[in-house]
Amino acid sequence: MNKIDVGVVGASGYGGGELLRILATHPNVNLKAAVSGTYKGKPITASFPNLAGHLPNLVFSDYGDGAEIAACDVVFLAQENGKAMLTAPHLLEAGCKVVDLSADFRFRDTATYEATYKTPHATPEWNSRAVYGLPELFAEEIKGKRIVGNPGCYVTASTLALAPLLKHNLVAPSSVIVDAKSGVSGAGRAKFSLDYHYPEINESVSAYKIAGTHRHTPEIEMALSTFGGLSDFALTFTPHLVPMTRGILATAYANLLNTSSTSELLALYREFYAGMPFMVILDEGELPATKHTLGSNRCHIGLAVDKRMNRVTVVSCIDNLVKGAAGQAVQNMNLICGFDETAGLLYAGGIAP
Amino acid sequence: MNKIDVGVVGASGYGGGELLRILATHPNVNLKAAVSGTYKGKPITASFPNLAGHLPNLVFSDYGDGAEIAACDVVFLAQENGKAMLTAPHLLEAGCKVVDLSADFRFRDTATYEATYKTPHATPEWNSRAVYGLPELFAEEIKGKRIVGNPGCYVTASTLALAPLLKHNLVAPSSVIVDAKSGVSGAGRAKFSLDYHYPEINESVSAYKIAGTHRHTPEIEMALSTFGGLSDFALTFTPHLVPMTRGILATAYANLLNTSSTSELLALYREFYAGMPFMVILDEGELPATKHTLGSNRCHIGLAVDKRMNRVTVVSCIDNLVKGAAGQAVQNMNLICGFDETAGLLYAGGIAP
Amino acid sequence: MNKIDVGVVGASGYGGGELLRILATHPNVNLKAAVSGTYKGKPITASFPNLAGHLPNLVFSDYGDGAEIAACDVVFLAQENGKAMLTAPHLLEAGCKVVDLSADFRFRDTATYEATYKTPHATPEWNSRAVYGLPELFAEEIKGKRIVGNPGCYVTASTLALAPLLKHNLVAPSSVIVDAKSGVSGAGRAKFSLDYHYPEINESVSAYKIAGTHRHTPEIEMALSTFGGLSDFALTFTPHLVPMTRGILATAYANLLNTSSTSELLALYREFYAGMPFMVILDEGELPATKHTLGSNRCHIGLAVDKRMNRVTVVSCIDNLVKGAAGQAVQNMNLICGFDETAGLLYAGGIAP
Amino acid sequence: MNKIDVGVVGASGYGGGELLRILATHPNVNLKAAVSGTYKGKPITASFPNLAGHLPNLVFSDYGDGAEIAACDVVFLAQENGKAMLTAPHLLEAGCKVVDLSADFRFRDTATYEATYKTPHATPEWNSRAVYGLPELFAEEIKGKRIVGNPGCYVTASTLALAPLLKHNLVAPSSVIVDAKSGVSGAGRAKFSLDYHYPEINESVSAYKIAGTHRHTPEIEMALSTFGGLSDFALTFTPHLVPMTRGILATAYANLLNTSSTSELLALYREFYAGMPFMVILDEGELPATKHTLGSNRCHIGLAVDKRMNRVTVVSCIDNLVKGAAGQAVQNMNLICGFDETAGLLYAGGIAP
Repeated sequence: MNKIDVGVVGASGYGGGELLRILATHPNVNLKAAVSGTYKGKPITASFPNLAGHLPNLVFSDYGDGAEIAACDVVFLAQENGKAMLTAPHLLEAGCKVVDLSADFRFRDTATYEATYKTPHATPEWNSRAVYGLPELFAEEIKGKRIVGNPGCYVTASTLALAPLLKHNLVAPSSVIVDAKSGVSGAGRAKFSLDYHYPEINESVSAYKIAGTHRHTPEIEMALSTFGGLSDFALTFTPHLVPMTRGILATAYANLLNTSSTSELLALYREFYAGMPFMVILDEGELPATKHTLGSNRCHIGLAVDKRMNRVTVVSCIDNLVKGAAGQAVQNMNLICGFDETAGLLYAGGIAP
Repeated sequence: MNKIDVGVVGASGYGGGELLRILATHPNVNLKAAVSGTYKGKPITASFPNLAGHLPNLVFSDYGDGAEIAACDVVFLAQENGKAMLTAPHLLEAGCKVVDLSADFRFRDTATYEATYKTPHATPEWNSRAVYGLPELFAEEIKGKRIVGNPGCYVTASTLALAPLLKHNLVAPSSVIVDAKSGVSGAGRAKFSLDYHYPEINESVSAYKIAGTHRHTPEIEMALSTFGGLSDFALTFTPHLVPMTRGILATAYANLLNTSSTSELLALYREFYAGMPFMVILDEGELPATKHTLGSNRCHIGLAVDKRMNRVTVVSCIDNLVKGAAGQAVQNMNLICGFDETAGLLYAGGIAP
Repeated sequence: MNKIDVGVVGASGYGGGELLRILATHPNVNLKAAVSGTYKGKPITASFPNLAGHLPNLVFSDYGDGAEIAACDVVFLAQENGKAMLTAPHLLEAGCKVVDLSADFRFRDTATYEATYKTPHATPEWNSRAVYGLPELFAEEIKGKRIVGNPGCYVTASTLALAPLLKHNLVAPSSVIVDAKSGVSGAGRAKFSLDYHYPEINESVSAYKIAGTHRHTPEIEMALSTFGGLSDFALTFTPHLVPMTRGILATAYANLLNTSSTSELLALYREFYAGMPFMVILDEGELPATKHTLGSNRCHIGLAVDKRMNRVTVVSCIDNLVKGAAGQAVQNMNLICGFDETAGLLYAGGIAP
Repeated sequence: MNKIDVGVVGASGYGGGELLRILATHPNVNLKAAVSGTYKGKPITASFPNLAGHLPNLVFSDYGDGAEIAACDVVFLAQENGKAMLTAPHLLEAGCKVVDLSADFRFRDTATYEATYKTPHATPEWNSRAVYGLPELFAEEIKGKRIVGNPGCYVTASTLALAPLLKHNLVAPSSVIVDAKSGVSGAGRAKFSLDYHYPEINESVSAYKIAGTHRHTPEIEMALSTFGGLSDFALTFTPHLVPMTRGILATAYANLLNTSSTSELLALYREFYAGMPFMVILDEGELPATKHTLGSNRCHIGLAVDKRMNRVTVVSCIDNLVKGAAGQAVQNMNLICGFDETAGLLYAGGIAP
């Protein structure tokens, strides 16, 4: 099979590590470079002992003048926010396709990006040519593109939970609330602080950045507005930290405009996501758990109507590092390169329990 | 100091074990009987090795003809739902005061109890003389009573989060949503099932009994309706299981009827709960974590207004086995016996981290 | 590629679930039957929601008269101890190859089996034709066999840690101690008890069946005696439960007969396990963590010499459900069927962190 | 009751926080000063939200010129190693009694301290007047002293497990191995690193500093040599990190010199620790779990003889932050101040589960 050369920049973080894990066995990929300032010159196992036996010839490299990376067909950027917009132009001009896991290329409206991330966008011209990489909603737009802004983890879970309802105008937009619970790997690997020190997190649940202050709030609004053709859609979004490493469970609430039953809405979801290989709509009475998606690129969704309140509760689950980051990035690569959308992503989902 | 004789029925479960732990050092209590069918005749440490060195002369006993228990001044009933309504009449007639940790004496409206728990109430006459034991809202009513229905754990966290808002008519009642996250000890100790088997729970978050189907939903509605003078108050309540042993975090959402700021609402909460020894209202910008209340009888509350949505998010935390069960039961005993409300409950809160 | 028909009996437990997960993407396997008394007639996702999207046409079946299973080329038996010896003869006579994950076919010395498992062996004649399926030590013996006794999880970790030392007579056999720590999935999925109830296990470490009373003790002794050509080898083995789902870490101690350095012993291990695709010997100064092997079929080993005591400490890690159960069983299937030893097992190791 | 003034230096770490929690309700203590460079000027709840409602008038203070602290009757030093030996002389000269939780005053043999901690001792003259604060072994020596070196957490668990055997010459000293498992709070609160980042620790067990390289090794040897009257006692000690916040379980192995039964040894332990309020010797067949000692100052011990190997396995458990640090420090204060040994430490042990 014809293989493409692929590079990963920011390869020693959690997103980077998952990219290496997935790409190591991707049938269309020759993993050629893994850039990490921290680990340059060291073997992959220095950062990821779990990859012992894989990628035996790969060593973390420095970005240097970018020539090694620029020679790749596809480059994944898995750095902190604000870095990719500096790196990507060079790579794109050199002919690379780029999938960026940061927030830098998620917003076509540069002003929203700048207001949210408190920094001017370094390359609005390339940003305008990027696409938002949520394949279940935007697959056709993604296919022709060379630069993809890979969605945030909370955004992926929240948007997939709500898209069918908003697209079909079944709920009052202003009533939408998402209460999300995330494992701690979502906080990344590079920054240590008391906040993520094991004894502080363990055996505790907490909310943070409540009442619309989390930066994924405008991204959820952008994704759902764009897809649903809504103007000024806004919601209340609350993130929580739970004592586990991986997984996001998003519990979404919305007031129904008309009367619907649980089974009608499930049928609608099933039709909406028909043929999409990573979407699992559960049967009535079933609800997802993050463990069911552990290590897989799938999103599981269950829902029920609270008839007394004429309100629907939708529960969606993903692995924040896979469908919420590296797996979805590979899915996007598959789309922009013309591979099978599921290539490299069809290992049996989850290693639960 | 004058001590009263106290008995615990259902003493080998989690609620019972916490009662024994707290009562072991309560200055007004002589713990005289601990009834457990499973452990009868065995030392307390057979069920609670953590109590080694305490209660050295106490042995689990059988309920028998009830004479030993009926000789106590106060009896805690910590059995499954449906048992206390059979046991309590005998004890009350013998002159005991009773604090029941089950649902049996929580609803003055017997019909709601019967609809929720799918069983006729065995003693509506005693039920009508009981009081709902949430001291922060009903202390005066509790003081004169002989039979107390101790609130559910989710109900305690949810009701304390919302009472100031509803009492002051600051929010639209029909907009209220509570998204609650609980540790696994809330499921009890006696029933084993795959649901609570360690490998199934660990490293996973899940929702269950969504869309108003959890039995604590009508209890929250009853508590807030009674206290707030509302008729037909109803809400959407969603319980979740998180991988930890103890703690409940309730995230409550409500649409504000007028414009309020975070600091105004915090001031209101502070005034509302002024002088109540177990209530902690956090400063603006601070949010609670369940770990902060671990092992204590306190409830911590933080909140913020989402100005864009004109919606408030309130976050409350308790230890489900203490303020959500045994600690609150002792607080109720203190009130009905005329002890200091904090007697036996003022150990330094939490053993966090 | 030519595919064989495979069946799994006891398919709804943890070992069975891992077999389904691994076999679902095995290139040489057509998974034809999954037998579960509990789940018969239900889809695979009824027991394993994580397998949604895989094995879409497979439904749990009843064993019935065994005809469906007996038509398979290879059958995995993943039942409780004592069942396989009743089932296997029928399957073997029907021409199936059998890999048994229970203890039934691990001991060629039937008396040791019977003493350890307190039950007569139902089919000593088939037992005598079985082989102990630890491929790193017995690959050549395994290749020709039709019935394999797949090793215990503790035994795999312990034996791989010690085999080089004992084979080369470097340590005093009577000085050997293994102190092992296991995740809770090792206790299985079918039996619920207070012992594995989430709140009891979480945030606690405990030892159990100490001082040689765990049934894996004679199995470790058998494996190392057989391989090392030792007579009457015996050790002290201590199992511990730690609050995690998967993984075994075995810390082995032995007194050196002569002076050796850490680097010399690491070189010996490296040579001993050279070319074995699932063995990873760490560099001097590195030590394994169970997370590094999570979800993979690999065994990681590190060691150091305590020069003051002239004693070596060897630390080995595996995933108890993969290399300690289902993965090793597939490795054995690969060997007895003439497939590549790594077929279906070369996904990138671990999904850590 | 007459109360003494007490100060804590290093009050915002885990040891310091536990001191505050315990001292807040100690009947003989007026907690006068809590020194923390990081939190100076902030309320106690800034670092310990769990202490809300306690110590309402206490604010973290700077050490400044030491006058505030030097005015206390007793000072607890809960800083990193190397700090107390600089601070203590000033306090001792000012008339304070000092309990130091670091390693600085644990070794009478200054050379061992200096070799172990790679730093010269700043005040060997005060060190020679200090006492090793393990009350179960050295209560009489502690009573007259003004400066106490509070033992290490691993050392407390290991030494209490082995002291009866070595004192009575029942085991071969050179055969002793301790395999210890610790929660993560033992690593402290101040230093953040990838090592204790939640996603790295969670769902994993690992060994570290094996083969005698952990600094608690010489301390265990010193404690047992001193107590047992042994010369040149040395052992193999292996620490492990397990995914929990608190607790140490030490599994100790030793070869018996003569034949002994489990019940004989348990009787010996029971006699050895008779009358000591924090020691719990379990019945034959029972084994401890760290959860049983969670939040308490107790040490639980169980044991069994492996008759085949003529070797005893002893398992001991403590809460590393209580009996392994702050609780034992308060126990030492009680002894040097002539209070009841259990004052402030007799809350019901554990909040398990």
